[in-house]
Amino acid sequence: MKKTTAQNAFYAQSGGVSAVINASACGVIETALRSRHIGRVYAGRHGIIGALTEDLIDVGRESPAVIRALKHTPAGAFGSARFKLKGLQENRAEYERLIEVFRAHNIGYFFYNGGNDSMDTALKVSQIGASLGFPITCVGVPKTVDNDLPHTDCCPGFGSVAKYVAVSTREAALDVASMARTSTRVFVLEVMGRHAGWIAAAGGLAGKGPDEPPHIILFPEVPFERDNFLARVKQCVTDFGYCVIVVSEGAAFADGRFLADAGTKDAFGHTQLGGVAPVVANMVREAHGYKYHWAVADYLQRAARHIASRVDVEQAYAVGKAAVELGVRGVNAVMPTIVRKSSRPYRWVIGHVPLDKVANQEKKVPREFITEDGFGITAAGRRYLEPLIAGEDYPPYKNGLPDYVKIKGVLVKRKLSTDFKL
Amino acid sequence: MKKTTAQNAFYAQSGGVSAVINASACGVIETALRSRHIGRVYAGRHGIIGALTEDLIDVGRESPAVIRALKHTPAGAFGSARFKLKGLQENRAEYERLIEVFRAHNIGYFFYNGGNDSMDTALKVSQIGASLGFPITCVGVPKTVDNDLPHTDCCPGFGSVAKYVAVSTREAALDVASMARTSTRVFVLEVMGRHAGWIAAAGGLAGKGPDEPPHIILFPEVPFERDNFLARVKQCVTDFGYCVIVVSEGAAFADGRFLADAGTKDAFGHTQLGGVAPVVANMVREAHGYKYHWAVADYLQRAARHIASRVDVEQAYAVGKAAVELGVRGVNAVMPTIVRKSSRPYRWVIGHVPLDKVANQEKKVPREFITEDGFGITAAGRRYLEPLIAGEDYPPYKNGLPDYVKIKGVLVKRKLSTDFKL
Repeated sequence: MKKTTAQNAFYAQSGGVSAVINASACGVIETALRSRHIGRVYAGRHGIIGALTEDLIDVGRESPAVIRALKHTPAGAFGSARFKLKGLQENRAEYERLIEVFRAHNIGYFFYNGGNDSMDTALKVSQIGASLGFPITCVGVPKTVDNDLPHTDCCPGFGSVAKYVAVSTREAALDVASMARTSTRVFVLEVMGRHAGWIAAAGGLAGKGPDEPPHIILFPEVPFERDNFLARVKQCVTDFGYCVIVVSEGAAFADGRFLADAGTKDAFGHTQLGGVAPVVANMVREAHGYKYHWAVADYLQRAARHIASRVDVEQAYAVGKAAVELGVRGVNAVMPTIVRKSSRPYRWVIGHVPLDKVANQEKKVPREFITEDGFGITAAGRRYLEPLIAGEDYPPYKNGLPDYVKIKGVLVKRKLSTDFKL
Repeated sequence: MKKTTAQNAFYAQSGGVSAVINASACGVIETALRSRHIGRVYAGRHGIIGALTEDLIDVGRESPAVIRALKHTPAGAFGSARFKLKGLQENRAEYERLIEVFRAHNIGYFFYNGGNDSMDTALKVSQIGASLGFPITCVGVPKTVDNDLPHTDCCPGFGSVAKYVAVSTREAALDVASMARTSTRVFVLEVMGRHAGWIAAAGGLAGKGPDEPPHIILFPEVPFERDNFLARVKQCVTDFGYCVIVVSEGAAFADGRFLADAGTKDAFGHTQLGGVAPVVANMVREAHGYKYHWAVADYLQRAARHIASRVDVEQAYAVGKAAVELGVRGVNAVMPTIVRKSSRPYRWVIGHVPLDKVANQEKKVPREFITEDGFGITAAGRRYLEPLIAGEDYPPYKNGLPDYVKIKGVLVKRKLSTDFKL
């Protein structure tokens, strides 16, 4: 084990996980373990919660092979958390506790792997640390399948879910085309993206042009118009014999109501949660009577490491590595970004942006990426999306299944005598 | 083009398609095109319907590269049909029309790629052909993701959907485990299998033992008991922090009612079709209040050629090839089967069985493959299932997507002056 007087580093995973967040972890950890500026490397058990409760995983106790295997293992190996620290005014105690734990364990580097909210937290930690006389270098590591972080060309996690959705749409469309003569005419695939339609847009890559499925994409960015939609479905069935629809979970009416909330009730009259796909499918059935099928990809899409994009895996690793390199150079309160140099061929480099420019911002699909009718992606959209799903990066297999790794997760001995209640 | 006085062959795809039915087509077609006993090779456009309407695709007009690429292309390249010929008594006209078309095109071989119903049709065609003075050699080619055909160790199509479900369950379970501390505690994955729980059983391969997810499998073979199920969910969340459930679309109460029919209604009070996963998830929420997610794989599972089982692809091709070899040897009214010689290591050979033994039969998951509590698979079940998902057989990729092939589908000139109304 490395002996050094350098300060230790703390890494945590935050929010919804992805197929490649562990690849970022691998990038952070491998780089930090090699750095002479960093002492021990700790990871929060269940993200930032591990810092508050002093549950710190000693990453140095994991074998290099296990750390390496994180690069091909989906989801959050250290545990993630949906836990947003409150504002400084509302709950200063949380921040003070964080600094207390960091101080006790001589943690001078904080690498926070998450989305918009997490960048806000990392920013606040850097501010409060300085004001409490324990300055901490805070670097965000971008992660979100939703691809909604600004100031970066894309977000690690998105490329792989995009590839999954594009591949699945192409495959399911072939299935529907086979069956449409006597059976299913309409197929609806529901994908993630509560506020931004990037994932739905990726479904558009499944076809090579407007005549190929998916025939209709429903974006959160485009207000849903029932009659217009139903007319288009009918036109597709007439023209092609079938209709493939990719719908974002965030698809909404002009007044902002989600389609998913259109109100399905169970036998007891209780509102049933979730599922825009069955709502859309039922709408089609009621209007046209077509036989339909629907699928809801849910966690399958964001955990699908088996069909990860190679570009995405590389970028996920690169932002993790860059975060540590920035940190040890003393660049504080920033997030590494992906900077696109060209689309064809695809070339990118790592840049960085101050956290206060990213925190709590949201990047939606621009109108010029969506066709005028609102149902598809344009050439510009395709040009943006296509490089992000390029290349395969298959995990190793054992007995027919991906050989994903589990960490030992040995906790560091606690130094504080106080407990912290969440 | 081959010139011969030998009789021509007709191939058709039937029923729900799979990731590897085209691999069987490839086996049939490559073998038939090489055979000196067979003249032209035709395929039915949309299955048996193509024979009735005299829409015969001239397979000889496709390039050898396209035929070869069928081996890695999912769904039914020639079009399939859910179209069961009625009984001879009810609709003799259909059978007579079939023979009329076969006679007009000198078709002496009928290779029918489907499940139980299709084997019944193939049997009837062989009988009626003989009785009408135009004997046709009819050989079935087994295909069903449901794995419910008797007298064969397994059915081509099943291994790949099994692999998809096992991989997806393992991946989604890692996701849930990451999130369970602050968010999702219960995840429900709905898989196919209306009457037999083979696909749900395959989900059990995701974990290496009873402590690993999926924690609960709901089989059609085991009557659903609400209280027992809910108690188990609670126990899992207590013991593991979360609970992963794989549910077959055919899961049913003791009285035979499907869980999926438990009666969800839309805002207008209409019964909403489909989706046992949301029914199960809502049941858990009402009883325990756990945050949940659910996914419905639907067509994604059976079209997922990108994660096909290599064993399945090989077997699919082999039964297609064997069907033609049997046919040209004059073995009539049979179906090639997979015969397991050993499980570890996995060895298999091709056998065959008379069609009348397979027609309209259904093979369910035997009780000894299901744990005593009804919620998991036994060591015997695992021993049976594991070899079927072995090996990967990735399709080629282009621009980040599988490069699936489309046939030209040139139709043979019609010889009959009469139309046929379906």
